[in-house]
Amino acid sequence: MSAGTIFGVGLGPGDPDLMSVRADRLVRSARHVAFFRKAGRKGRARHLVDGLLRPDVTEVAMEYPVTTEIPVDDPAYAARLSGFYAAITRELCDLSRAGRDVVVLCEGDPFFYGSFMHLHARLRDLAPVEVVPAITGMSAAWTATGIPVTWGEDVLTVIPGTMAQDELARRMGDTDALVVMKIGRHLPRIRAALAAVGKLDRAWLVECASMAEQRVVRLAEAGDDAVPYFSIVIVHGDGRRP
Amino acid sequence: MSAGTIFGVGLGPGDPDLMSVRADRLVRSARHVAFFRKAGRKGRARHLVDGLLRPDVTEVAMEYPVTTEIPVDDPAYAARLSGFYAAITRELCDLSRAGRDVVVLCEGDPFFYGSFMHLHARLRDLAPVEVVPAITGMSAAWTATGIPVTWGEDVLTVIPGTMAQDELARRMGDTDALVVMKIGRHLPRIRAALAAVGKLDRAWLVECASMAEQRVVRLAEAGDDAVPYFSIVIVHGDGRRP
Repeated sequence: MSAGTIFGVGLGPGDPDLMSVRADRLVRSARHVAFFRKAGRKGRARHLVDGLLRPDVTEVAMEYPVTTEIPVDDPAYAARLSGFYAAITRELCDLSRAGRDVVVLCEGDPFFYGSFMHLHARLRDLAPVEVVPAITGMSAAWTATGIPVTWGEDVLTVIPGTMAQDELARRMGDTDALVVMKIGRHLPRIRAALAAVGKLDRAWLVECASMAEQRVVRLAEAGDDAVPYFSIVIVHGDGRRP
Repeated sequence: MSAGTIFGVGLGPGDPDLMSVRADRLVRSARHVAFFRKAGRKGRARHLVDGLLRPDVTEVAMEYPVTTEIPVDDPAYAARLSGFYAAITRELCDLSRAGRDVVVLCEGDPFFYGSFMHLHARLRDLAPVEVVPAITGMSAAWTATGIPVTWGEDVLTVIPGTMAQDELARRMGDTDALVVMKIGRHLPRIRAALAAVGKLDRAWLVECASMAEQRVVRLAEAGDDAVPYFSIVIVHGDGRRP
């Protein structure tokens, strides 16, 4: 019996219509799907494929043992997650050895800040693994603003909003186009850093790009409340255009 | 009669299987498609949808009046292109006013260094326009390397290979993950800049990601010849991972 393949399938930004033809086919035909979720939740990736799965599909819910209860820079956080990934790796390898293909449902693009990367690093030498790229959340976000993000020779910088304040401002000042991911409770700091480099009036906040709850506002007019997980700040480039 | 919609439809990196479900549906059902091409060529975007179009489709080939005959920083270049975009805009607006939807076939993601942006800027106040995002060439490229591009809090910088040498090196040194687009004949300069900041041994060259001609090599082992248009250099990030 030949080993089954573990497919890391990017589902894209949230609208099922923006999944790739290949992802759509793999999801609809899957006998085994696996997906990350917080304990007690349905899981965003699983939610995204509602109505697409076979009736006889087997679902493997991979529940994070910890999310925000331990700081990410605490060694205990890494240890807990590492043990979790190791256990999932064993489970997926067992399925592969039994000849089963498994579709791992991945939000966004698997190799771009994706959770699947942690499984991929452990699985790649143990089982056949294939990755299907996807439309990123940032592509959906700049499309939602109705303004192109990069022109001509523009430089694009993608940064996490978790950076230290001075480093945030330095990066924001030293680029043409900007994408800020991982915003969460950092919106006031991000806004202040953009103001410090004179770019606040060109910044947009996009929440839940391509989803039913999508919201696009100028960042200067957004409140200071924590924003949904899928929020992205964008400053568009302004390069050469005939 | 209501006006037709001009759809800027991203076709993704090259493999038709990586088009979005929405793009696939729009392309297959289109009565009018438009696409850029060099004079005398079939056009890469048009080539990508071979076999998908309706038999009764009407095709609008938008032929660039100039490509490399005039330097891009010559005012004559901008003037020629500007007149070209204005003429295309009139043609597409006429179709829209006649109630026709038009699918503009766009390589990659339309709002990420795309040619469609130049039409979009002219059309947006004259006709209904919708943009469908797509998987970028860079997503297909980092997927092709088999290595995730960004981890944890990594910074990603996307630069054009056309930059001045010292600026290339500065940007390459000041980021975690790196994507270099628009490589063309600049490969020796890009390699030298990466070597100058100690990152050449971590750099990959991906040609024609996701296409039949796909080639993935370590940049240090690639030749100095001009590379295909769809070539991307990648240095992967190395951030936090439990």
